[in-house]
Amino acid sequence: MKVKVSRKAHFNAAHRLYRKDWEDTKNTEVFGKCNNPNFHGHNYEMIVSVTGEIDPETGFVMDMKVLKDLIKEEIEDYLDHKNLNIEVEEFKTLNPTAENIAVVIWKRLRPNVQDTHELEVVLFETPRNYVTFSG
Amino acid sequence: MKVKVSRKAHFNAAHRLYRKDWEDTKNTEVFGKCNNPNFHGHNYEMIVSVTGEIDPETGFVMDMKVLKDLIKEEIEDYLDHKNLNIEVEEFKTLNPTAENIAVVIWKRLRPNVQDTHELEVVLFETPRNYVTFSG
Amino acid sequence: MKVKVSRKAHFNAAHRLYRKDWEDTKNTEVFGKCNNPNFHGHNYEMIVSVTGEIDPETGFVMDMKVLKDLIKEEIEDYLDHKNLNIEVEEFKTLNPTAENIAVVIWKRLRPNVQDTHELEVVLFETPRNYVTFSG
Amino acid sequence: MKVKVSRKAHFNAAHRLYRKDWEDTKNTEVFGKCNNPNFHGHNYEMIVSVTGEIDPETGFVMDMKVLKDLIKEEIEDYLDHKNLNIEVEEFKTLNPTAENIAVVIWKRLRPNVQDTHELEVVLFETPRNYVTFSG
Amino acid sequence: MKVKVSRKAHFNAAHRLYRKDWEDTKNTEVFGKCNNPNFHGHNYEMIVSVTGEIDPETGFVMDMKVLKDLIKEEIEDYLDHKNLNIEVEEFKTLNPTAENIAVVIWKRLRPNVQDTHELEVVLFETPRNYVTFSG
Amino acid sequence: MKVKVSRKAHFNAAHRLYRKDWEDTKNTEVFGKCNNPNFHGHNYEMIVSVTGEIDPETGFVMDMKVLKDLIKEEIEDYLDHKNLNIEVEEFKTLNPTAENIAVVIWKRLRPNVQDTHELEVVLFETPRNYVTFSG
Repeated sequence: MKVKVSRKAHFNAAHRLYRKDWEDTKNTEVFGKCNNPNFHGHNYEMIVSVTGEIDPETGFVMDMKVLKDLIKEEIEDYLDHKNLNIEVEEFKTLNPTAENIAVVIWKRLRPNVQDTHELEVVLFETPRNYVTFSG
Repeated sequence: MKVKVSRKAHFNAAHRLYRKDWEDTKNTEVFGKCNNPNFHGHNYEMIVSVTGEIDPETGFVMDMKVLKDLIKEEIEDYLDHKNLNIEVEEFKTLNPTAENIAVVIWKRLRPNVQDTHELEVVLFETPRNYVTFSG
Repeated sequence: MKVKVSRKAHFNAAHRLYRKDWEDTKNTEVFGKCNNPNFHGHNYEMIVSVTGEIDPETGFVMDMKVLKDLIKEEIEDYLDHKNLNIEVEEFKTLNPTAENIAVVIWKRLRPNVQDTHELEVVLFETPRNYVTFSG
Repeated sequence: MKVKVSRKAHFNAAHRLYRKDWEDTKNTEVFGKCNNPNFHGHNYEMIVSVTGEIDPETGFVMDMKVLKDLIKEEIEDYLDHKNLNIEVEEFKTLNPTAENIAVVIWKRLRPNVQDTHELEVVLFETPRNYVTFSG
Repeated sequence: MKVKVSRKAHFNAAHRLYRKDWEDTKNTEVFGKCNNPNFHGHNYEMIVSVTGEIDPETGFVMDMKVLKDLIKEEIEDYLDHKNLNIEVEEFKTLNPTAENIAVVIWKRLRPNVQDTHELEVVLFETPRNYVTFSG
Repeated sequence: MKVKVSRKAHFNAAHRLYRKDWEDTKNTEVFGKCNNPNFHGHNYEMIVSVTGEIDPETGFVMDMKVLKDLIKEEIEDYLDHKNLNIEVEEFKTLNPTAENIAVVIWKRLRPNVQDTHELEVVLFETPRNYVTFSG
């Protein structure tokens, strides 16, 4: 009886796509408008999913309230209203593309989710663009 | 040429999360506000998906009209505007968590879907919480 | 420079449509499935809007954070995970139709919003049915 | 570090479900209203997903701008505001069900996506009906 | 206690924008791709709203079930899976723009809604384009 | 025959809420996390509506294609992927709250819309917060 439980959450942040070790022209060529040195930003919407057996006692795979609080503490409090490039440790050396942000979110949540459970992170950069990472 | 066809549907119901064999304090500790003895309720939104080969004659995996009617007869008519704990056979002995409701829906639909086809049920308890069961 | 600022919020509740002073047959005739004596329920989604002049100092009509907290204290904490008919004062003598719930929400918020500002409440009973009340 | 990147897009088209080699009565029996010889139509909404390793240089699996332009050139320009049965080569001999349209879209995109990447097409025929094809 | 009650509904149809009394070049110049003589189509999504006093007996402005059935009989059954230009009386001499379709829907509903109630029709031609008509 | 036609559009931007003439402590007290000196950002989603008589020749209030292009030229090209505080003339001396951004958008569009038509701008700062300005 494996079920996947999913919870939506969100944060707002500024970012800029570029590599410090590339020249400006190359950054602009590869990242276009996303390389604006003054930053731009997004409402990032997330879906965090945990897959596992239903606990026959509670009927839960994982208490949604616990999952909600975990996302708040590990992700929302850490990323909300931040400048990802300047203020978030992981992105000081990593380009904050949607792909990389999803991986960072996954890595921060993984140790807090039961070992036997699978974890998936969907990250919407805009309502039209999103990425999915499952480890 | 395996394709997954998906159909949205919905029902409204009241429920309460608790175990009859637990004391009130334990039920409240585990289920919080969801243990309200006077019940609360949800607009449950479902996505039912059937995966199989495209029938080369019709171009359908399964006629959407047939799937729509099946969901109406087996799920909507059975659960809509009901009190899940009191009025639905399965939940007289089973806690009506989103996980368990998804499993019950899947079990009611499975015998009505062609054997060679896979079946998946996604159940939104709220626009922010949902579960997925594929058997 | 009159601007309308709008904030979404939500609560889940059980209810039943009926009049105590009507006989069962009349209640069923008028309210159909919504008269189920065991209750059913909804995810109520709200949009609360406040219209007024932009404060030239802050650039706000009303601080969204203040509006969010007000909705939480006056509406979400009051109605979430409740049985409207049994547990909410106003509906002990008032049928909890979407129309009446919207009016009750509006009346609870009105004294907390600046006199010179207009107030509007949109209440979704389902994603397909909603009502609007502006006083 | 396999990530799936997804991009939404859309086109509007007219179509009719029927087989030229069937008699009218059989077409109506199988395809119902969708067999209207004067056509009906839809706003088709698509989600195109590409799964692959994150390029450590750019942080991209695939540049979303490139994916967006590819969908525009290969799908939107080809299908938008068209009568699928009359004007689209593939559907001159193939019934334009959602299933078959998804397969046609997938086949048009596949040669333009890196070999090592997986491709998935989700096609919404209406907001309530959709299909998924992954090859 | 004036409240506006709103109900969503939908139909799919083919159409073509053009004037019979204009030459092809002028039709193409003004209506672009929408002038395709082979037709294209849309999923039209509607929101029908009725505004009036709450009936103190029932707590309803208008029974949503009655409104739903009215929309089905007058609009969905009349327009769904139709070619608007060929099969719908009103559009034999009227260009089926979103604006004109909204007016036609409003005129068909108006005689069926209580005189003292106001009527509004919102018609989405696509999820990105819509029109509103209130008489 | 007055109809309101509405078109959705969007842009992404970074911003910071603060007044240069206030001290840091006051800015933080009033604007909270939104005062982050390193900026944060949003996916701004807009709905631009124009209300006027239906042109009996075309059946349009305003050609949606023209409205779409106008929004692109005047708003999307001007604000997309920008830092509002640093790079947008109007916000060098004006706090870029949702209210003020909506007014700026309205003022940029107004001269380009026919005098006899009314103009309304709805601006979503997040999917949960939005503002409406009609002049």
